[in-house]
Amino acid sequence: MTALDETGRTDPAPPDTLVATLAGAAYTDPAAFTREQESILERRWMCAVRSADLDAPGRFATVDIGRESVLVVRGRDGALRAFLNSCRHRGALICTEAQGAVRRNLQCPYHAWTYGLDGALVAAPNLSSLGDIDRTRYGLIGVASREWLGYLWVCLADEPPSFTETVIGAVTTRLGSPEQIDRYGVADLAMAHRETYEVAANWKLIVENFMECYHCATIHPELTEVLPEFADGLAAQYYVGHGAEFGSEIEGFTVDGSSGFAPLPDLTADQDRRYYAITINPTVFVNLVPDHVIVHRMFPTAVDRTVVVCDWLYHPDVIASGGDTRGGVELFHRVNVQDFDACERTQPGMSSRAYASGGVLVPAEHHIAQFHDWINEMCADG
Amino acid sequence: MTALDETGRTDPAPPDTLVATLAGAAYTDPAAFTREQESILERRWMCAVRSADLDAPGRFATVDIGRESVLVVRGRDGALRAFLNSCRHRGALICTEAQGAVRRNLQCPYHAWTYGLDGALVAAPNLSSLGDIDRTRYGLIGVASREWLGYLWVCLADEPPSFTETVIGAVTTRLGSPEQIDRYGVADLAMAHRETYEVAANWKLIVENFMECYHCATIHPELTEVLPEFADGLAAQYYVGHGAEFGSEIEGFTVDGSSGFAPLPDLTADQDRRYYAITINPTVFVNLVPDHVIVHRMFPTAVDRTVVVCDWLYHPDVIASGGDTRGGVELFHRVNVQDFDACERTQPGMSSRAYASGGVLVPAEHHIAQFHDWINEMCADG
Amino acid sequence: MTALDETGRTDPAPPDTLVATLAGAAYTDPAAFTREQESILERRWMCAVRSADLDAPGRFATVDIGRESVLVVRGRDGALRAFLNSCRHRGALICTEAQGAVRRNLQCPYHAWTYGLDGALVAAPNLSSLGDIDRTRYGLIGVASREWLGYLWVCLADEPPSFTETVIGAVTTRLGSPEQIDRYGVADLAMAHRETYEVAANWKLIVENFMECYHCATIHPELTEVLPEFADGLAAQYYVGHGAEFGSEIEGFTVDGSSGFAPLPDLTADQDRRYYAITINPTVFVNLVPDHVIVHRMFPTAVDRTVVVCDWLYHPDVIASGGDTRGGVELFHRVNVQDFDACERTQPGMSSRAYASGGVLVPAEHHIAQFHDWINEMCADG
Repeated sequence: MTALDETGRTDPAPPDTLVATLAGAAYTDPAAFTREQESILERRWMCAVRSADLDAPGRFATVDIGRESVLVVRGRDGALRAFLNSCRHRGALICTEAQGAVRRNLQCPYHAWTYGLDGALVAAPNLSSLGDIDRTRYGLIGVASREWLGYLWVCLADEPPSFTETVIGAVTTRLGSPEQIDRYGVADLAMAHRETYEVAANWKLIVENFMECYHCATIHPELTEVLPEFADGLAAQYYVGHGAEFGSEIEGFTVDGSSGFAPLPDLTADQDRRYYAITINPTVFVNLVPDHVIVHRMFPTAVDRTVVVCDWLYHPDVIASGGDTRGGVELFHRVNVQDFDACERTQPGMSSRAYASGGVLVPAEHHIAQFHDWINEMCADG
Repeated sequence: MTALDETGRTDPAPPDTLVATLAGAAYTDPAAFTREQESILERRWMCAVRSADLDAPGRFATVDIGRESVLVVRGRDGALRAFLNSCRHRGALICTEAQGAVRRNLQCPYHAWTYGLDGALVAAPNLSSLGDIDRTRYGLIGVASREWLGYLWVCLADEPPSFTETVIGAVTTRLGSPEQIDRYGVADLAMAHRETYEVAANWKLIVENFMECYHCATIHPELTEVLPEFADGLAAQYYVGHGAEFGSEIEGFTVDGSSGFAPLPDLTADQDRRYYAITINPTVFVNLVPDHVIVHRMFPTAVDRTVVVCDWLYHPDVIASGGDTRGGVELFHRVNVQDFDACERTQPGMSSRAYASGGVLVPAEHHIAQFHDWINEMCADG
Repeated sequence: MTALDETGRTDPAPPDTLVATLAGAAYTDPAAFTREQESILERRWMCAVRSADLDAPGRFATVDIGRESVLVVRGRDGALRAFLNSCRHRGALICTEAQGAVRRNLQCPYHAWTYGLDGALVAAPNLSSLGDIDRTRYGLIGVASREWLGYLWVCLADEPPSFTETVIGAVTTRLGSPEQIDRYGVADLAMAHRETYEVAANWKLIVENFMECYHCATIHPELTEVLPEFADGLAAQYYVGHGAEFGSEIEGFTVDGSSGFAPLPDLTADQDRRYYAITINPTVFVNLVPDHVIVHRMFPTAVDRTVVVCDWLYHPDVIASGGDTRGGVELFHRVNVQDFDACERTQPGMSSRAYASGGVLVPAEHHIAQFHDWINEMCADG
């Protein structure tokens, strides 16, 4: 770290040195969060469920997206579908467990209205003679969905934005070309570990934290050991296409820099020994290293509460052969804990009069202003 | 359960097959609950306390009715009286325990203002020479009350509705004649058991659940064993005067159908071997079977929280002789738990956009629409 | 206690016998509390930290004043200073512990922006060449502060009211002359004990309780034993300059009336064997007895929640020689518990319709009306 030089000023004070952030109320006002639920969380593509978690017909998961409980189920045809998790009869939740399996149909446990795995109403007690009930009209209400990177993404908007532009486009913009992500074969990886974090902070603080590395020297000793350039404070996301390079003594992306596994088979030479971080607005982070991929999904639950689910994905051969992934998992788990601690101590400061009109972004953080602009734009649309 | 017949339609789609429910917000919006507190819970007759719980002068109970703490106390004259539980001096609660006893007077434990069991101010420290204090004006504020069925019913309205019409009338309408309930001698029964349930659901969901039996086949295996017609989905409340008949193998209203006790002495033959359920709006259910009576009192505490107190009442001789009432108690305790579980899984569905304009009532539930009309009418009055 | 005399009326009902209190909503409405935060808690002088708790440069404390986290730190020059506890960069709390120590500077643990103990920005990573950052402009935001009675008082107002008038003046008005408090040498006393109470009541109920002694006979048996005139119900604060005298058998201000310690050295004879209670609006109580001083600081956290910190202060020689202060500490600890229990049972009564337009003050409580007027005046100013 370099202190402000007291004497030797070299630059003539560029007017754009410090850029304003959002105001504090954006992180503390329940009305602001409601606006974001309506205009962002319930209108944009959200990464809901890892496809491989539901590996057979009848397997289902429930997940909270915005203010909705969404039910994802694998159909007899092998496809994943998403529905609002509410019976069309009297509104009970169809499924309450986070994950489970049904044999043939989805049956409401209150009055036994029964839906096919495609959502159509297939049976309702005592209604045999009432042929006028339109089974489609009273089927479960579908939610737009799309599989990509081995996850089912859902969108609660009536007219979802383009998946290609808003999701795939975010990755392409960050990595420089659409083929880069394909080489990691993310959809075919196997899960080594999943960790769920309950963070007492507004979700935007978590995004902003992920977007910059100005904090890395202060709170991430293990990560800056592996990626020395992070100690300089520039985020991997600052330059298009740039991946932070491993230190010369570092053998792998592990907590102590010891060797990991062979690089994923299709990587190019310039993807080896590098870490790429990608933010997909609003709630997904993808982290690429040569031998594994880390995916964060956020589920904001209140203006000051966010659940973060983090998956560590390796080549299936590594998992099948019982490879020891603990060194890799431990590295980013520590990074997560360090980051979420920082977000939690920032949350209370958001309500101070000192932050009423916001704080400032230093040059290494200026790209966060684009995220703030995006938030304002989305909420203005509502 | 009969599935919707896919081919053999017999009815030409009567337009009133499915009837709309209340909108979801009626079950989730705190403002709707406040309206119900003002227009229903604090204006209608509410069943507050079992009279026999307060069996001597000075015995008192406190109970929350709407947003008020109500103090019920038995006077030296043997009568029960109800008051707002707030000292006229500086407002402290006079009594804080749910039940207790005082010797002679009700004394505020803060500054010792002292009230007779009839509520009149009888003493206040240091005020001996201040004869201008009107003891009646500064007496505890009385609440309208009326004993019936062995309970004290209270009404917080300035001008209570007719008890005869709104409470006794509800029972008469259900049973077909005013003498029917009298034969059970409810006020003279003895309590075998009391159970208190904290239910995470709006109180109206609990009423609706109690009003219909369309769910019985799905969630009440023991009850439908005892009352086979319940498996068909028609509620005992659907026809005026109808009581559901015990199955031919059933000996008593017990969890396994084994024999209970002798029928209550004044029952007619057509009341034997039958179960009658009665809803008294807004918050009371009465269940009549030959050898006992089950009384539910609800105390809604928030838009999504309701306390339900359930008393099992038997002939005093059964209790005095140590009769084993466990089989009867266990049956309806299981029914309660099954019902409240269903209500709790329905509550979250009320906030889904799938339920924004409500769900539907099948023919066996159409009488619930009358309850919805009543709710709307009461709240419109406010 | 004297009961209202039923027959022998002597006074012709003076119209001012009973005076109205504030309305119940003043104690239950979150909007009323917000108004008080803005107009009182964040605008008046609040007693924040005992100076001796921070006995060396770099020692700091954090304390919640109104809705702000305030950071108090002792500088290298020995002075205490108060700041808003929020980093000027991205708003994180600078310090999170209630008390602690730093070596040289205050450093934000998120991105390492570093401030001197005087609040000036002294370093920020990567900003060496950016001399245009005004270190004063981006220093920690200072809060007005003033040491008195051995405590640091802070005021969040942009233009604080006169400390002399509003704080020292309150003590002078109560005791009759400005020299009275000086003789206790409060700033030089040592702390024997500190107790923190979490009270489920509005802070104004705690003030009102402290201002009157009409409740003493009812709830304070130990205190009225020591101070017999308290049994008559007149508060020590009722007459300017009056201190309640110890009972003739009482040797000291202890839980059983046994002897305490020698009077503080500069007391006058008329200050010996007397108890003086002083309310300093809005949140401080000072209690003076011959051999010790008890200071209450309140920290209101919600409309129905207040944290009270109580310090027992004795002559340093008593503490240094290991004198047994338990008898003195126990007396007021019991008084505190008795008072806060009373306040907690009063809080629920505030929301009763019986208290909607408030209660009444008897003559011994009439001075509480001045507090109510002050509250109304302060909030009207906002």
